[in-house]
Amino acid sequence: MPEYGRVAIVGVGLIGGSVAAALRARGLAGSIAGFSPDARQAQSLGLIDTAADTLAAALQGADLAVLAAPVPAIVQLVPELAGALPRGCLLTDVGSTKASIAAAAQAHLGEALGRFVPAHPIAGSERSGPAAADARLFEGARIIVSPLPQTAPEALARVSAFWAAMGGQVVEMPVEAHDALLAATSHLPHVAAFALALALARRDDADAARRMAGGGLRDTSRIAASSSALWADILLDNRAHLAQAMGQFEQGWQAIAQAIREGDRTRLAMLLDEAAHWRRTLA
Amino acid sequence: MPEYGRVAIVGVGLIGGSVAAALRARGLAGSIAGFSPDARQAQSLGLIDTAADTLAAALQGADLAVLAAPVPAIVQLVPELAGALPRGCLLTDVGSTKASIAAAAQAHLGEALGRFVPAHPIAGSERSGPAAADARLFEGARIIVSPLPQTAPEALARVSAFWAAMGGQVVEMPVEAHDALLAATSHLPHVAAFALALALARRDDADAARRMAGGGLRDTSRIAASSSALWADILLDNRAHLAQAMGQFEQGWQAIAQAIREGDRTRLAMLLDEAAHWRRTLA
Repeated sequence: MPEYGRVAIVGVGLIGGSVAAALRARGLAGSIAGFSPDARQAQSLGLIDTAADTLAAALQGADLAVLAAPVPAIVQLVPELAGALPRGCLLTDVGSTKASIAAAAQAHLGEALGRFVPAHPIAGSERSGPAAADARLFEGARIIVSPLPQTAPEALARVSAFWAAMGGQVVEMPVEAHDALLAATSHLPHVAAFALALALARRDDADAARRMAGGGLRDTSRIAASSSALWADILLDNRAHLAQAMGQFEQGWQAIAQAIREGDRTRLAMLLDEAAHWRRTLA
Repeated sequence: MPEYGRVAIVGVGLIGGSVAAALRARGLAGSIAGFSPDARQAQSLGLIDTAADTLAAALQGADLAVLAAPVPAIVQLVPELAGALPRGCLLTDVGSTKASIAAAAQAHLGEALGRFVPAHPIAGSERSGPAAADARLFEGARIIVSPLPQTAPEALARVSAFWAAMGGQVVEMPVEAHDALLAATSHLPHVAAFALALALARRDDADAARRMAGGGLRDTSRIAASSSALWADILLDNRAHLAQAMGQFEQGWQAIAQAIREGDRTRLAMLLDEAAHWRRTLA
């Protein structure tokens, strides 16, 4: 008997589609309903059983609901969720920022709030949409769960077990700490990659640069190929923490720029070494 | 019969060691002599036949000499090269910047200048040293050759054939255009990656960031693990072109920062899209 009878996935893009694919690959769900602009495509790809026309239809009879739409879409859906979530249905999400979703949930979910366990799988790709779904996307990935003060301990345990069943390594972290950390570890690298690609795109030799790109440029700019709509939302949603992280980048950049400008090789090598040391000790 | 009788490799680290490994794998050299602080290690790894004690000893009887030391070391060696290079011996290098090596060659090489074909394989790794050598490093890589006005056409043809035999795709480009392009496609991404890693290293939550790094941060910062000594030299050597490229990055960064600060989603998405478009069309 599958672990989860009926699972509703709201937003069946890269992440929601990968949840569906992992549920299928591991035989964990009796049936999967999707509600999403991509739902028909996800259905024809075999990721979900039902492409629901409404949020309420997707949630009907669900034991677990996974919100995998972009953050602003999740925030918008929360008021409607409150009335449509079946009694006892567990709720989790995959939003890249947690504060605005947590606030919407606290304002609207009522008695269902205790069954909501905000989550964020640190997994993704510069690709998007259900065609990019990958049943192994969460394998070995850290998955942060950020319980609210109102989250029931049993819901936390069960949703943590769900994400572990997806193959992830579950780590617990408060909403605020999550958003501050992710500003530095995810949102800042995206801004750096976007700014780098933008600088290259605007050069007179942009075509030559494209042809002659080596592995360094390729890797450093990879995530600049991500969805601009999705990332505009994420960067704006977390802008307070991001501003702090961007300020830290600017300080590092300026220190390196000054050492280059002044031809101070000792100071420059020291700065690069400090950076290299951190990078070499990544887990 | 091997294509090249005796090859001298000056600097047997990642790149020089990989030239040696590729020569061996393809059976192209009769014998390989190395002159390098790493030469004994390279010899015990089987990459070279002879670890020479002096530059002159390494060059004795050579048909082809490959300068694969860091740029400042190559510049320093050039005066000594002039007297030690056998008659008819072809000369190429792998320096990441070309102007300072070209200037040293023009000042010191005399009659041998016609046999010098500056080159730069767009291949590498954040690893260094002969233990990181890889016989397949140049396969499919672009290799820029930057002939000087004094380079003999026959030398250009023969050195281009050598780099093609290493598996590379040879592209011809003047010294000045090379240094301007590489400032943008290689040196700028390194500065961005180093600044990013430096910002992360200096955060209070640097340890958590290290543990929770996802694929995006990992890729964006990968080249920040590169040799700080090597990169301090490269960034300083090409600082004029680099300053221009860094200015272009700063403009892109500021435009994105302003759109975030002002909450201008339309403008932000447009900027990210411009960046994403360039990245998605990388060859």
